[in-house]
Amino acid sequence: MKNHPDLLLTNAILLTMDESFTQFDNGAVAIRADTIIAVGNTDEIIQQFPMVEKLDCGGKVLLPGLVNAHTHVPMTLLRGLADDLRLDVWLLGYMMPVEREFVSPDFVRLGTKIAAAELIRTGVTCFADMYYFEEDVARATAEAGLRALCAQTVLKFPTPDAHSFEESLAMAREFISNWLNHPLIVPSVAPHAPYTCTEEILRSTAALAAEYDVPLHTHLAETAIEVENMIGAEGMRVVPYVERHNLFDAKVLAAHCVHVEDNEMYLLRHYKAGVAHNPSSNLKLASGAAPISRMIELGLKVGIGTDGPASNNDLDMFEEIRLASLLAKGMTGDPTTIPAQTALAMATRLGAEAMHMGHITGSIEVGKRADLILVEVNLLHNSPFFQRDPHNRYAQIVYASKSTDVSDVMVNGKWLMRDHQLTTLDEEELMVAAREYAKKIDVFLIQREESILSKLVAIEGATEGESFEIQAKVRITDPKIIREALGRPEIEILYHRHYHEYDTYFQFSDPRQGRLRYREDEYLDAMGKVIDVRYRLTLVGPSREDRFPSDVLLSRSRYIAPATHSLRFYREYFNPESEQSIEKQRLRWRILFKGIEFYVNLDEVIQPDLGYFLEVKSRTWSRRDAELKSEMVSELLELLSASAAESITQDYIEIISP
Amino acid sequence: MKNHPDLLLTNAILLTMDESFTQFDNGAVAIRADTIIAVGNTDEIIQQFPMVEKLDCGGKVLLPGLVNAHTHVPMTLLRGLADDLRLDVWLLGYMMPVEREFVSPDFVRLGTKIAAAELIRTGVTCFADMYYFEEDVARATAEAGLRALCAQTVLKFPTPDAHSFEESLAMAREFISNWLNHPLIVPSVAPHAPYTCTEEILRSTAALAAEYDVPLHTHLAETAIEVENMIGAEGMRVVPYVERHNLFDAKVLAAHCVHVEDNEMYLLRHYKAGVAHNPSSNLKLASGAAPISRMIELGLKVGIGTDGPASNNDLDMFEEIRLASLLAKGMTGDPTTIPAQTALAMATRLGAEAMHMGHITGSIEVGKRADLILVEVNLLHNSPFFQRDPHNRYAQIVYASKSTDVSDVMVNGKWLMRDHQLTTLDEEELMVAAREYAKKIDVFLIQREESILSKLVAIEGATEGESFEIQAKVRITDPKIIREALGRPEIEILYHRHYHEYDTYFQFSDPRQGRLRYREDEYLDAMGKVIDVRYRLTLVGPSREDRFPSDVLLSRSRYIAPATHSLRFYREYFNPESEQSIEKQRLRWRILFKGIEFYVNLDEVIQPDLGYFLEVKSRTWSRRDAELKSEMVSELLELLSASAAESITQDYIEIISP
Repeated sequence: MKNHPDLLLTNAILLTMDESFTQFDNGAVAIRADTIIAVGNTDEIIQQFPMVEKLDCGGKVLLPGLVNAHTHVPMTLLRGLADDLRLDVWLLGYMMPVEREFVSPDFVRLGTKIAAAELIRTGVTCFADMYYFEEDVARATAEAGLRALCAQTVLKFPTPDAHSFEESLAMAREFISNWLNHPLIVPSVAPHAPYTCTEEILRSTAALAAEYDVPLHTHLAETAIEVENMIGAEGMRVVPYVERHNLFDAKVLAAHCVHVEDNEMYLLRHYKAGVAHNPSSNLKLASGAAPISRMIELGLKVGIGTDGPASNNDLDMFEEIRLASLLAKGMTGDPTTIPAQTALAMATRLGAEAMHMGHITGSIEVGKRADLILVEVNLLHNSPFFQRDPHNRYAQIVYASKSTDVSDVMVNGKWLMRDHQLTTLDEEELMVAAREYAKKIDVFLIQREESILSKLVAIEGATEGESFEIQAKVRITDPKIIREALGRPEIEILYHRHYHEYDTYFQFSDPRQGRLRYREDEYLDAMGKVIDVRYRLTLVGPSREDRFPSDVLLSRSRYIAPATHSLRFYREYFNPESEQSIEKQRLRWRILFKGIEFYVNLDEVIQPDLGYFLEVKSRTWSRRDAELKSEMVSELLELLSASAAESITQDYIEIISP
Repeated sequence: MKNHPDLLLTNAILLTMDESFTQFDNGAVAIRADTIIAVGNTDEIIQQFPMVEKLDCGGKVLLPGLVNAHTHVPMTLLRGLADDLRLDVWLLGYMMPVEREFVSPDFVRLGTKIAAAELIRTGVTCFADMYYFEEDVARATAEAGLRALCAQTVLKFPTPDAHSFEESLAMAREFISNWLNHPLIVPSVAPHAPYTCTEEILRSTAALAAEYDVPLHTHLAETAIEVENMIGAEGMRVVPYVERHNLFDAKVLAAHCVHVEDNEMYLLRHYKAGVAHNPSSNLKLASGAAPISRMIELGLKVGIGTDGPASNNDLDMFEEIRLASLLAKGMTGDPTTIPAQTALAMATRLGAEAMHMGHITGSIEVGKRADLILVEVNLLHNSPFFQRDPHNRYAQIVYASKSTDVSDVMVNGKWLMRDHQLTTLDEEELMVAAREYAKKIDVFLIQREESILSKLVAIEGATEGESFEIQAKVRITDPKIIREALGRPEIEILYHRHYHEYDTYFQFSDPRQGRLRYREDEYLDAMGKVIDVRYRLTLVGPSREDRFPSDVLLSRSRYIAPATHSLRFYREYFNPESEQSIEKQRLRWRILFKGIEFYVNLDEVIQPDLGYFLEVKSRTWSRRDAELKSEMVSELLELLSASAAESITQDYIEIISP
């Protein structure tokens, strides 16, 4: 009785989602172990298998389980951590520092289980993941009973699970070879993205995936800036670049593809690469909207994903399906594009095909695994229903059903939810454990946010450099006199420089935090031409350490260099209470005076127009040294004919906004 | 004890949504009758009112009820009737014919009650409606216990509830004067849109609203074509146009405003007009996305609406709030725009203000009506939660809550839902009644769809004109001979015309339906210059009625003139199986021969190149007349030296695609 089923699902509105979109108004499915062995009208199926256990679906819609084609499931534990931020601030300022601190095998197992519960509740039976400690993700997924493509991330930076890319690659190889032929898990490797990988990583991960004939999961062309940078650095767009580095030797699942042109879509099609469209995440991070109408027209396999729950902020595929359809219409100006039927196919059969798992799941067809869901449609928010057009069933699911209308979920022939009750997971227990993590993360971030310095260290990943200096500043009227005085024999000039400096100061509500200065330093040649630009961040302490006679000051600054992000980034990340800019011309001399090094700055503050100032400075390291140097500073000021000038004990920024 | 409350809601995460976005982690609200009389920390409120009945909110989020700022609630009964269609096909081909046939006081009461149940379930306590029989909408809304702005529609066409605009206006006046000062309903008038109203309608509805000091509800600048047409016809955009016609004499609530420029936003602000943003509907019908980031920046009162459930297809404000935020980010490229807090304000306080009801509802403040909802957030799909940033509460509601997380709803101090149970409506009963309507509408549409002719009559709103004619056609080689022969004395030429004709034929899978011809008829002067163009639709019957000697045919055509829509419209509406085009030059003579009128057509079929043909035709009305004329046609062919030519019994289209 090899072909005898164990179970019949009968009396369902059956949308098979096969290539012909076969529908049965009163349909049935026969299941043997993990496999679908017959699909048809209820009457016929019952006649064919009269003695089998029947489950009456009571007129609910029977669909293949939904396929979430791109996500990072453990990130459920970071859901709602930081929102309404720019991608770089969100990623570099929050996600990565927290991941560095907290992501562990325990973290990913818990995060995966929470995701699994949410996925099952919302009708998802199969998903494509990419994260760290992916073997633990796979284990937790299999325990929950879900099907997944699990891809071990490889990056050119150290990650929470590896010190180097070689280590990640070895983990990926081990994971893939251990999990090949698992009934639920397809193991995979994930070079994170072209801009976070080296060419060597692209080549070696593709070779690994090809060796084991498993899919490769990656991010491609998510943002306009990624494409811009690629063109700048490599003279080509993202898809041809990864093609050149042999990525398509593997069966690729490419997430996003927001910024791809026609010729790139042809390339993706040629290499049978799948695409995962993530409409919520792409909108939320303002990356744009992938040209899915064109992709579908070209016959590309395009699935739909939620992306990670930290940028969505949930795993609700019903929201994504609806948005995929609506957004495509809005973007193209064509309300007939991506009709409900196509959108639902993207979330089932096409998604499975994009993941290179179309032979296993994605539609209700004989020979595929029994991955099925029941959706209640006889509900007030979905009433009434019109029979006239067979497309109406798809519209009903896509435009008016909610994820909470899913009542039953089966994966691989096994029920994971019956009548809204999960069978493999304890939600209460998961939520308690999640709260524990959230508390720890909250403490970590609250402490960090309390100190501008720790926020700074968190993103730059660098330790602070501290320096003490003594300084005197006087207001002058005639810079010529100073320049002439610098020619005196007591002064030996080591070098002379000309800078054009743009300083932006962030001020915070708590004055103990000090001020953060972002300096753009143009280094000019003798002709006034810019020959170099440096960007530096300096955290200026809130108060003077000491004050010597003649208004010579001892001060401390903590200084992190260089500033690798934009001013805009720092503004959004540090969220200062106020901001002030200063532009000045600075002539700087490094001199020897009585065998000691000093800096002499002759500043013209242009914006706002404060006039000319003379600064004399020297680094110091002890109280005794500071006292000695403060006396010499007084002497120097006299020598420079500036001892009678008005001394200024404030920074320029304090003059402007005291 | 005038200020003594009847009820305290305690132990809630209270988001007041007032202008300062005041939050209480453990907040309470004191309610007396229909009004909020105190808001604060639970401890303080309990201390202030120790002896009052308390309802412990168990740590749920307490929010002001959501405000749906634009909808057409009775259209729940048309939900899912027709999707993935262009606006004109959807509206003119489906919505309006069905509304003409079915909309009645009974229809709108049932549709309103269904909507009310869905609105209450999803946390909406107040909405802005626009439909027909609006007094019945108001009555059903008040019975359900919801708050609404109910606007009686006025159009320049006959409507389901009025033969003329004067009649609608009189209904609106009567409705407003009857319902002024109702505790739940604000009556209003709705000139539908500038393109469906005359200037007189705009002026008189504005005057009516101003007279009673009630808001005026309308659609403005929904589509690009509306703006284009307005500029073409009036030389100005939509907002200045309605300003010129005194619309802003009233307190305006303007739905959509998708295609407005900066200066129009300034005008709207100047006149304190509210805007209702409908992101799902605008995307679904491919109208675009309103520039809400700019509107909010300018301080406009922008609410969020679902639009009618026939173009959404539900009334789920949680979906709209999320989409409003995400779409704005995607459109502007700025992920920090319309943060969760702003999006939620749009769906509460700003929405109420846009409806000119901000003094009544939209936030939890002392003196406003008690319109409140409880939202469960301690759920798996919303776990964990981070305390770090007070904005996280808004993000949690906007990005990860579902409408089904709403557990309790109060309007005007009265509970409409307790722990997911509706208190004023019987959903089962409503669904049964909805199914009855759906069946009738299905029958109506299925019958109509079966016949191309009835589909044609449905959209053109015209009755069919039927004509019989006899006709002979022969292939000729030298048109000159014919033209000369027409100079014979037996023939009196009544007139002579030159046409350039472009015919498109729609063919259907059922050949009994005949063919539908869309003809673009350029009427040329003697110099070949186009002096007029006509567009006509003709349904050509599938078979000949009879055939006389000399291949003279009797045929019947049903003809609807003129074709007021585009070829694209008809293509999408009739959805033909195939399509064929023919282009020809036609010289036409209307002649008298033996006292009888005939048409002589000398055709050159250019595309595809079929050569020259001579047609002789005459209208007929009886069998006897047809026989007589068929003999005369033979005589005429002889007279025109064409009797020996090859006779053609097919239409040109049949020659091309038999």
